[in-house]
Amino acid sequence: MKVEIITIGDEILIGQIVDTNSAWMAVELNKAGFVVEQISSVHDREDHIIQALDLALTRADIVLFTGGVGPTKDDITKQTLCTYFNSRLVLDESVLQHIKELLRHRSAALNELTYSQAMVPEKATVLTNHVGTAPLTWFEKEGKVIVSMPGVPYEMKHAMQVEILPRLVQYFSAPAVIHKTILVRGLPESQLALRIADWENSLPKELSLAYLPNFNLVKLRLSAVTYTPEQVHHVLNAKVEELKNILREAILAEEDLPAEQLVVSRLAERGATVSTAESCTGGYIAHRITSVPGSSACFRGAVVAYDNSVKEQVLHVDAALLAVHGAVSQPVAEAMANSVRELLDTDYAIATTGIAGPSGGTDEKPVGTVWIALAGRDRILSKVYHFKLDRQLNIERTTQTAFLLLLDELREIPDGRGV
Amino acid sequence: MKVEIITIGDEILIGQIVDTNSAWMAVELNKAGFVVEQISSVHDREDHIIQALDLALTRADIVLFTGGVGPTKDDITKQTLCTYFNSRLVLDESVLQHIKELLRHRSAALNELTYSQAMVPEKATVLTNHVGTAPLTWFEKEGKVIVSMPGVPYEMKHAMQVEILPRLVQYFSAPAVIHKTILVRGLPESQLALRIADWENSLPKELSLAYLPNFNLVKLRLSAVTYTPEQVHHVLNAKVEELKNILREAILAEEDLPAEQLVVSRLAERGATVSTAESCTGGYIAHRITSVPGSSACFRGAVVAYDNSVKEQVLHVDAALLAVHGAVSQPVAEAMANSVRELLDTDYAIATTGIAGPSGGTDEKPVGTVWIALAGRDRILSKVYHFKLDRQLNIERTTQTAFLLLLDELREIPDGRGV
Repeated sequence: MKVEIITIGDEILIGQIVDTNSAWMAVELNKAGFVVEQISSVHDREDHIIQALDLALTRADIVLFTGGVGPTKDDITKQTLCTYFNSRLVLDESVLQHIKELLRHRSAALNELTYSQAMVPEKATVLTNHVGTAPLTWFEKEGKVIVSMPGVPYEMKHAMQVEILPRLVQYFSAPAVIHKTILVRGLPESQLALRIADWENSLPKELSLAYLPNFNLVKLRLSAVTYTPEQVHHVLNAKVEELKNILREAILAEEDLPAEQLVVSRLAERGATVSTAESCTGGYIAHRITSVPGSSACFRGAVVAYDNSVKEQVLHVDAALLAVHGAVSQPVAEAMANSVRELLDTDYAIATTGIAGPSGGTDEKPVGTVWIALAGRDRILSKVYHFKLDRQLNIERTTQTAFLLLLDELREIPDGRGV
Repeated sequence: MKVEIITIGDEILIGQIVDTNSAWMAVELNKAGFVVEQISSVHDREDHIIQALDLALTRADIVLFTGGVGPTKDDITKQTLCTYFNSRLVLDESVLQHIKELLRHRSAALNELTYSQAMVPEKATVLTNHVGTAPLTWFEKEGKVIVSMPGVPYEMKHAMQVEILPRLVQYFSAPAVIHKTILVRGLPESQLALRIADWENSLPKELSLAYLPNFNLVKLRLSAVTYTPEQVHHVLNAKVEELKNILREAILAEEDLPAEQLVVSRLAERGATVSTAESCTGGYIAHRITSVPGSSACFRGAVVAYDNSVKEQVLHVDAALLAVHGAVSQPVAEAMANSVRELLDTDYAIATTGIAGPSGGTDEKPVGTVWIALAGRDRILSKVYHFKLDRQLNIERTTQTAFLLLLDELREIPDGRGV
């Protein structure tokens, strides 16, 4: 079943915002067994919206509109679809009640503009927007479905998950789609493919396998499109068990989560804590960890020791060490990790010191040279990396590498394997 | 002059990557006087690419393709355009030389795939891709221009700035576009509009004004499309001087830069330094500052005091203060700011303590309650905010607000004005 996404609004076409909605929608649609054929961004203009819709309907079974559903004059999606379907706007009492309740919750009063949000095309099925005032409208035409929803990411996601995706699956009597993602660590894609070749050849035809390489990780995704989900679940689970026997400790996780979430949940499982001492990453590791809800259970804090004076005075790194080896060195990285672990009394500590760029590099230590140290209660490991990227990417790669080092340590596989 | 952007590649349509290229291109095209009519993402499929191109040419004068130009079999943009223009692939010796040099620099050898990158459509004008192996191809058809470039953001940006935009301006004898953006602080859009109504009415017809509201800021953008840029620059500068006299201290900056860049450059101008003590922002303020190249001149470091034990032991916040007022309180925020300022010996210090959510809120202090303190050498200011957003947005808003507080302080306008 093919889907097209049409985003409406000048803010994307003048580059004021990046369209992050479409990628999220594509992932969720794929998981439910739908394929995205095209994504188009068009202006808040009736002729443009109608042309895009007509073309999308020649290629796809489902057209999902986001945006252009606010109460102000420049938003015309609702009116345009109303005209397109030869319908007229009528007051929907239940939408009006919902808007009034939302406004009461926000201590705001109903006015002409918010009232107009309760006017909906007579021919549309109105779905509830649980988290906003703009209604979701669902139209059907010759067996095809056209849905309009808000462009605000929070409202769009809620609408897709709670109302739209379940209805699309039901409407098209779509088969169930089953996914299982395994994160594999320490094996490049080609080596991994060789290692699991026999297993891959043994997969029954209802299971398909995708390799999704990611920085220092490969995601293996097993999928099945099936009308007999229980039966296929059984086959899938058996195959996953076989895979676990082949890959053993190379399996980092059996779910597709970002590294910081794995770090937080693995630490929480063990009742363990972590702290960071960051120079070149400047607080980014701490930020990524604290962006995970519930991270306070395992994360105590960090010292961002950007200036050498902070390394000396807060982390008590020996001035002689800094003078002899330089800030970007193994002894300094290890001293920082040990010190912050003791200072904040945590089970583990991560330290980073490097040259993020664009300036500050030397022949001996060019931009992208980074030392990462990981201290535990009874041992420390440290390693140098040469990322050779731009400032932002050097910071991101350092952070991702630090997370993988900690995850390796939490699985107790040999130090620094495959990093 | 209208432009359409067509991104080619399954990775966008399956949601593996977010298309950040198009927004960047739209901004740069707008600055040069071009208007983006539509953005489309299509599959690596000949019929789909050709349909998208045909449709785009009915609406626009310029079609810019990104992506699908790698050397592997799934990338077919070059072959498709070659067929579309009834051309054939021929070896371009200068492209081959360029590829060889790039590979030598990367210590890689030429192979069949990289060699194939030097085969270009005979009817295309080949522009140099200074930073990659895939050539940029420029086609002309009935006065319209079609350009294909790589999808890798770094290569795309380089190609647009160095080769494509200057040529488009020249080809279409486009007038020069002049922009001047003024960041205004502490005046909501409607009040600002009233304050500058007379000035706005006095603008000559060649200057147009746009209000771009941003969180706690309004960006005023003056633009002119002109064949007499020097003359218009003169008028523009005179009008900007008038505006400065009207808005005075409400002008935060005369260039459109993110808050962290303004913070770094304002501190650097004064030779002043800053540190942070972060609880609810978890290192995000430090990260945003250190993402600016050269921030080491003004940023010493941070203490991320996520756990109360860190507030007590590293920042020496009185345990009694924490017990009586709670961590999310004015006395604790002020103690954190004063302490980190002294500990790291900086001119200014920012402290944050709040409930980012989703859990941890109480009736008295719901999720989104945040105290921010800003300590200077001889005074401190602190204020409470109620952001009522999700975790990520609460962290972002707190950070942005802290930057604006510091920028206000650096301009020495009354405390907390308009925040």
